[in-house]
Amino acid sequence: MTAEIICVGTELLLGDILNSNAQYLAQQLAKLGIPHYYQTVVGDNSERLKQVIEIATQRAQILIFTGGLGPTPDDLTCETIAAFFNSPLVERPEVIEEITRKYAQRGRIMTPSNRKQALIPQGAEILPNPTGTAPGIIWQPRTDLTILTFPGVPSEMQRMWEVTAVPYLKSLGWGQEIIYSRMLRFWGISESALAEKVAGYLNLPNPTVAPYASRGEVKLRVSAKAATDEQARELITPVEQQIKGIAGLDYYGADDDTLASVVGELLRSAGQTLSVAESCTGGGLGQMLTEISGSSDYFWGGVISYDNSVKERILGVKSEDLAKFGAVSSIVAEQMAVGVRSHLATTWGLSITGIAGPTGGTETKPVGLVYIGLAGPNEEVESFEYRFGAMRGRSLIRHLSACTALDNLRRKLL
Amino acid sequence: MTAEIICVGTELLLGDILNSNAQYLAQQLAKLGIPHYYQTVVGDNSERLKQVIEIATQRAQILIFTGGLGPTPDDLTCETIAAFFNSPLVERPEVIEEITRKYAQRGRIMTPSNRKQALIPQGAEILPNPTGTAPGIIWQPRTDLTILTFPGVPSEMQRMWEVTAVPYLKSLGWGQEIIYSRMLRFWGISESALAEKVAGYLNLPNPTVAPYASRGEVKLRVSAKAATDEQARELITPVEQQIKGIAGLDYYGADDDTLASVVGELLRSAGQTLSVAESCTGGGLGQMLTEISGSSDYFWGGVISYDNSVKERILGVKSEDLAKFGAVSSIVAEQMAVGVRSHLATTWGLSITGIAGPTGGTETKPVGLVYIGLAGPNEEVESFEYRFGAMRGRSLIRHLSACTALDNLRRKLL
Repeated sequence: MTAEIICVGTELLLGDILNSNAQYLAQQLAKLGIPHYYQTVVGDNSERLKQVIEIATQRAQILIFTGGLGPTPDDLTCETIAAFFNSPLVERPEVIEEITRKYAQRGRIMTPSNRKQALIPQGAEILPNPTGTAPGIIWQPRTDLTILTFPGVPSEMQRMWEVTAVPYLKSLGWGQEIIYSRMLRFWGISESALAEKVAGYLNLPNPTVAPYASRGEVKLRVSAKAATDEQARELITPVEQQIKGIAGLDYYGADDDTLASVVGELLRSAGQTLSVAESCTGGGLGQMLTEISGSSDYFWGGVISYDNSVKERILGVKSEDLAKFGAVSSIVAEQMAVGVRSHLATTWGLSITGIAGPTGGTETKPVGLVYIGLAGPNEEVESFEYRFGAMRGRSLIRHLSACTALDNLRRKLL
Repeated sequence: MTAEIICVGTELLLGDILNSNAQYLAQQLAKLGIPHYYQTVVGDNSERLKQVIEIATQRAQILIFTGGLGPTPDDLTCETIAAFFNSPLVERPEVIEEITRKYAQRGRIMTPSNRKQALIPQGAEILPNPTGTAPGIIWQPRTDLTILTFPGVPSEMQRMWEVTAVPYLKSLGWGQEIIYSRMLRFWGISESALAEKVAGYLNLPNPTVAPYASRGEVKLRVSAKAATDEQARELITPVEQQIKGIAGLDYYGADDDTLASVVGELLRSAGQTLSVAESCTGGGLGQMLTEISGSSDYFWGGVISYDNSVKERILGVKSEDLAKFGAVSSIVAEQMAVGVRSHLATTWGLSITGIAGPTGGTETKPVGLVYIGLAGPNEEVESFEYRFGAMRGRSLIRHLSACTALDNLRRKLL
């Protein structure tokens, strides 16, 4: 028994969006041990979608559709599937009720076009969409064929997959042999340097170890195949421990950990608090910290000192130092950190000042030059200089700056 | 005549990589005006690849392959294509020479496995790979069918596409007619409501108008087919103007515009400045504003008042109002906006306070309740209440809060 992924949407054919849904579903199928050999992308066109269904039903027994469940006339997936199997569409009052309720929550009234989303093939079960309006379906139009449909919005699709599709597929007997993975996360080391350090692990048969890198972070995916999660974990744990030993402080966490969540836990367990002063990141460091629910326990706030007047007036940076050393300097980073710490009365003050580009760089202070300041208990203060390189671009330089600030605090707290 | 994109690689089926090649090729085909209706992904398996070729040859006249051109035994694309058309493979000495030269440049010696990359179907032309070792082919195995192959490495594929494939396809007469698109952007209206308002435009033949929605934003893509960019623009402009007229203030910009860039331009042209006070967004509004290079002209900074002590101490929010109305209230939003505006001495002060969840909601103040405060010239101040709904989740509620704050300022500035 095999699955096929069918992504519906003219925006995919025009290259307007990346097909991240196909990647997510492919990973999920691998995890459940469900083989899949084909992925097809087709536009919002009923005739062509029918041809794709015709082909897929000849080579797969589980068809997974994404996209085309919205309220507009070009959303055709559900009605085309029903037409292919000669099944009538039935309006399901519970879906109308659910959409009406969700619209009301947002203070809006359901539009007539939303009624379309309640038309479900006869005999199909509803696959609830907790975060959006378009429900999916789970349907066996024939005994040897299962159809699952999902909206194209990745967050909605993923939530529906986890909450409803996975338990359903497991009830059909899938996921007996599972693939269990741990994603080990590193900061402050390059992918090639880490790969060389752990070279002996990259050819293991089970668990396998594979390196990835993105936006300054390096990851090692450790995956084991086994009958149960527990057996897989037993295979993974010793390898994970050894790799952590080799990587030392460059290892910062696993799976859903982020630098912000790891720093948060360290602050929480120490009973300490943090404030931030941001120049070139403009609020990005605060945003990272507050992505974590419950961060108000240790993160008190900060000052976005984008303009020098704010650095002086609120953070107490000395105007003669701004004039003499420039806003992007270690002394200003330190004064920003000291200023925000004392003004907000927190244990730590963390600051960022730099040149994110693309303009504003000079010979001596190029785009990508960033100073991190860290003020802590007993009036101690230090700063760190980074040169991320102009070619990384504004967005990545800002991201690297915020992550590196957190990483410095993490190493200090350990 | 239509094209089909066929991406070969088991790593795509395992979800190890995102299929960015399909997106790139889709954009490129659209630009050349070559219609394509299907994309297929298949693993490194000769039998299944043959089936995919069989299907594709029945529905497309240009087959574009990526992946499977490397030196390892699981790289099967070229030999499978040759086998499908019963064509022998011929070793091409110029390819061997080229690979040897490239290896020498890197101080390496060509391995025997690289010889495989010089095996080309009889009659095929070589599609040179300036940056890697694996060449592609351009081949007409039948008079009505053109095959192009590219390696899976995106940078190599893109270079080869630009340098050789585009001129070749243009020589066949493609690219005479181009597709030009404008993406019109809206905020403050639902996809279904907008689609109903512009229903008359959704079935136009040229330009076409298609709605999209993501994370609170609604978009209409207006695409025209014409001989030149200019002619396409002439087709698009009247439709664009009419849609803008219908949408009124809900239309905020086009193409690369963001709410932050549009607000920024309005502030710049008015010679005005902005500061922000953020609670539940924790810096996200500042980050959005500073994504724009040059935003320091009008954005001076802000205060992240995550903890109530910061609201009181730095923004001057009255402690009795915090106690009486709570931090998430219109009066606190207004005091935050007034406080940051006066403290940072800007024309406008924009504030956000809300419950992003998942915890912290109550019966009367549910998760998703957000207040935006806006203080402006002449000491005027107002506030706006939103209920985004708990099911949207923390990340989306924070995103909607920041965007909605910008949208309120935008409407005020217009």
